[in-house]
Amino acid sequence: MLKGLMQDRPLLISSLLEHAASFHPDAEIVSRTSEGPLHRCTYADIHRRAKQVANALTALGVAAGDRIATLAWNGYRHMELYYGVSGMGAVLHTINPRLFPEQIEYIVNHAEDRILFFDLSFVPLVEALASKMTTVCGFVVMTERAHLPDCSIPGLLCYEDLLGAQASDYAWPRFDETTASSLCYTSGTTGNPKGVLYSHRSSVLHSWAACSVDGLAIGASETVLLVVPMFHVNAWGMPYAGAMSGARLVMPGPALDGRSVYELMRDEKVTLALGVPTVWLMLLQHVDSKGLKPKDELCLRRVVIGGSSAPRAMSERFETDFGAFVVHAWGMTEMSPLGTVCNLLPRHSGCTLEQRLSIQEKQGRAVYGVEMKIVDDEGVSLPHNGMASGHLLVRGPWIAGVYFRDEGSPTLDAEGFFDTGDVASIDADGYMQITDRAKDVIKSGGEWISSIALENAAIAHPAVAEAAVIGVAHAKWQERPLLIVVRKPGQDLTRASMLAFMTGRVATWWLPDDVVFVDELPHSATGKLQKMKLRKMFNDYRLPSA
Amino acid sequence: MLKGLMQDRPLLISSLLEHAASFHPDAEIVSRTSEGPLHRCTYADIHRRAKQVANALTALGVAAGDRIATLAWNGYRHMELYYGVSGMGAVLHTINPRLFPEQIEYIVNHAEDRILFFDLSFVPLVEALASKMTTVCGFVVMTERAHLPDCSIPGLLCYEDLLGAQASDYAWPRFDETTASSLCYTSGTTGNPKGVLYSHRSSVLHSWAACSVDGLAIGASETVLLVVPMFHVNAWGMPYAGAMSGARLVMPGPALDGRSVYELMRDEKVTLALGVPTVWLMLLQHVDSKGLKPKDELCLRRVVIGGSSAPRAMSERFETDFGAFVVHAWGMTEMSPLGTVCNLLPRHSGCTLEQRLSIQEKQGRAVYGVEMKIVDDEGVSLPHNGMASGHLLVRGPWIAGVYFRDEGSPTLDAEGFFDTGDVASIDADGYMQITDRAKDVIKSGGEWISSIALENAAIAHPAVAEAAVIGVAHAKWQERPLLIVVRKPGQDLTRASMLAFMTGRVATWWLPDDVVFVDELPHSATGKLQKMKLRKMFNDYRLPSA
Repeated sequence: MLKGLMQDRPLLISSLLEHAASFHPDAEIVSRTSEGPLHRCTYADIHRRAKQVANALTALGVAAGDRIATLAWNGYRHMELYYGVSGMGAVLHTINPRLFPEQIEYIVNHAEDRILFFDLSFVPLVEALASKMTTVCGFVVMTERAHLPDCSIPGLLCYEDLLGAQASDYAWPRFDETTASSLCYTSGTTGNPKGVLYSHRSSVLHSWAACSVDGLAIGASETVLLVVPMFHVNAWGMPYAGAMSGARLVMPGPALDGRSVYELMRDEKVTLALGVPTVWLMLLQHVDSKGLKPKDELCLRRVVIGGSSAPRAMSERFETDFGAFVVHAWGMTEMSPLGTVCNLLPRHSGCTLEQRLSIQEKQGRAVYGVEMKIVDDEGVSLPHNGMASGHLLVRGPWIAGVYFRDEGSPTLDAEGFFDTGDVASIDADGYMQITDRAKDVIKSGGEWISSIALENAAIAHPAVAEAAVIGVAHAKWQERPLLIVVRKPGQDLTRASMLAFMTGRVATWWLPDDVVFVDELPHSATGKLQKMKLRKMFNDYRLPSA
Repeated sequence: MLKGLMQDRPLLISSLLEHAASFHPDAEIVSRTSEGPLHRCTYADIHRRAKQVANALTALGVAAGDRIATLAWNGYRHMELYYGVSGMGAVLHTINPRLFPEQIEYIVNHAEDRILFFDLSFVPLVEALASKMTTVCGFVVMTERAHLPDCSIPGLLCYEDLLGAQASDYAWPRFDETTASSLCYTSGTTGNPKGVLYSHRSSVLHSWAACSVDGLAIGASETVLLVVPMFHVNAWGMPYAGAMSGARLVMPGPALDGRSVYELMRDEKVTLALGVPTVWLMLLQHVDSKGLKPKDELCLRRVVIGGSSAPRAMSERFETDFGAFVVHAWGMTEMSPLGTVCNLLPRHSGCTLEQRLSIQEKQGRAVYGVEMKIVDDEGVSLPHNGMASGHLLVRGPWIAGVYFRDEGSPTLDAEGFFDTGDVASIDADGYMQITDRAKDVIKSGGEWISSIALENAAIAHPAVAEAAVIGVAHAKWQERPLLIVVRKPGQDLTRASMLAFMTGRVATWWLPDDVVFVDELPHSATGKLQKMKLRKMFNDYRLPSA
């Protein structure tokens, strides 16, 4: 081959912050701190202090490739670590503090983390685990001397003392762009958590996708509220995309309740907010309980919802009460996470709100950089007609190829596509819609029934608090759906009235063969419904029809 | 170093078109053809036919790395060649037909082009040059059999026959992303033209910059008119950014006169148009001469102006008469070409039109991916304060490192920065403004005088048709400015009244030491003022003050 003659410049995370410090030095990062008050700084400040972080880590003996862990909320110090750690060639390992302590212990030891940085909120957690984190040789609490806790953590270091002792002169090293930059574990429903090891290249390419008009359209004119945590797939890449574009960033710290989020949106004139449906539910409840008028009080133009499906009613509420457009997005920890974004096309300009909400329910079109296909059980590609649904597979430069220090790898097909575990359809305009998790789909007589569609139909009943559908064995049909329902307190609901309610809302042959009522459903540490446990519980269940 | 564990996927130009065909199959490419009528097709069509191009070239014996030349206007067939040629691993060499024939001959032979594709307009040119293009073994006229010209070109092939004979089945090969994709020669003012050899990597990264909100914000909701030619730095990357985003593209073919461009804008509901000031002057003249109301008739929202400085009056006209915002951009053939874009920041929202136009006169902020600095004659970095001006240097993955098959390379400094040959200032917000070409700047007593600023002050006089300022030798001051003026027909203008007019418009010590009147100024084939020739002409000129 003939080689092109362009400059050989690696794509490094440090260059994102250098760009921001050169071309957006005064753009602000506003943080609600663990200590209490709001903190304001700029990209120029973050750049200076990230260099102090790199000098401090060097002084602590940290070398390229070492893993540096964080247990921290969204804030400027966490952002300094994002750039200081990765910029020097070490690996930032962000840990989800909502995991069970034994999972955190497993993850830290598996990653062989050398230093652990943590917010004041997590002092008790770190006290309990410190002696079990066998590779960690430095514990740094992210605060200044005045707030240093009285605790038993051995050799506790103070973040501000550590930085204060260092010069802000530091030349970011140049190295290969495929070098590891950061690490995030997925808490799968089976087996131990698995580590996804991102690279500088994948993080920079992913930022471009986030800053593109048809991606998340992050730009210098936005004030972006990061409700999505920085311990969750790098806050969907926002600390990187922010620096790439010079967007103003607002970090909520530990205060994710409806009132705190609302006031931060209002006081900081937030134009774009990103988060999972759970926090938006809390926000909407706060608005309702106080009778607030967000359309009059806020500058919110867009809300990006990911993590799990954005309910239609939520998109409608943001549209009508906030005057904000909900951008539905989909991705995974293994995907950095951006896969699809539900932006509209010119042809939708004449749609009614109802029509538009139906489009917004879909997970959206793949951003450039993510190749996507749906296949049947034999791996044969299915058409993009909005009807056919199959296993959703993806491929691209910011999608995991192998898990960190793990014998198992993501399931890649012969062409190198990663099986997401989701079942989806893709329509003629390229909009993808997830219909189920592959392991939850009910295979009845060779056809697939979506457990999610049945759950959505059941949950629409006013007496239902929560609902789950699993497939149970059936002699003739192989599997048939069983509906498991938690009633709302004091509500009376029978099998017959439940099924009557669902009739007409789903295809007749999809109707559950039985309904059982329980007091509660099993959930994971991060709040996900554990269908595997449910399947075990109902392993011997015999359907009346079977 | 520890390597990240993301998938190893090369960034290839073919993947841009595959993405468009999968996720924007029905988005349109509208072309005004050399044959006459408008032609409409989609990204799915372009994808199919680009594969036929690859098959046809393979059948002609073209191998990876071979150079395939085009002499063609903007249109769908040219776009098919963009993807078919680069996609198969060959190199698309776009030639500027406005060069002198001997320059075209030099370029084709220097590049060792194997096949030449050309539009009907260029049949006479190719007839004259065919026997001198020693490496070209195939001439393909881009039309169908019915329009095949009667000419003397040996073994002339017909584009549509060539494609029609081929299957549209073709698997794009996978290769290293640093492979050469395309070639464009710069016609420098000194020496022979030099070839810039782009890579797949540089082209894809550049597309992301073009699609980013703070870049050119190319998105699926735009209808983009490519007035900038596809033989000029890949039409500023639009054929690639279009596919990346699914934007609707409108190609004007050879008809770049004001009326044709206006009608295309109107009939195709163009929202964004890109081009050099010359074509916009023709457009504005057409609007004036016909008394048109573009604001009422067009959907134009933005005009990207590059190639040379966007005059303030032009930005104002587009704003007031078209309701369109002028995005001033700057780049070079060596830069793919995108370097800076003049988008506004939130702090400019309260500006008056006059204040805003002063910002829009600047070339704008660097897009992420372009590192930029200004240095003095000794290479020392100058501050970003909007006052200091110095040599403008750039570095990045879509900036040339070496010229193609040339002993000379771009001038790179010790840190690998390319000297653009421009002199510029950068303000505290990161906005860069070009003040002169380094070789044109007048060095007077250790200080720099901008020849461009003096020319702009002179041209503002109603009797001046064209003006140029050069430095001539001065015993005391080293150099002093000489103003050379072409008067408008029938206009009377004296040295004294010219200088009186300029007094107060520029610093007193900048005022030219003398004014001479000439009938015409020397220009290059592409219309650029040739100051080197002027300097030769006035080599022995003795200033009255010297």
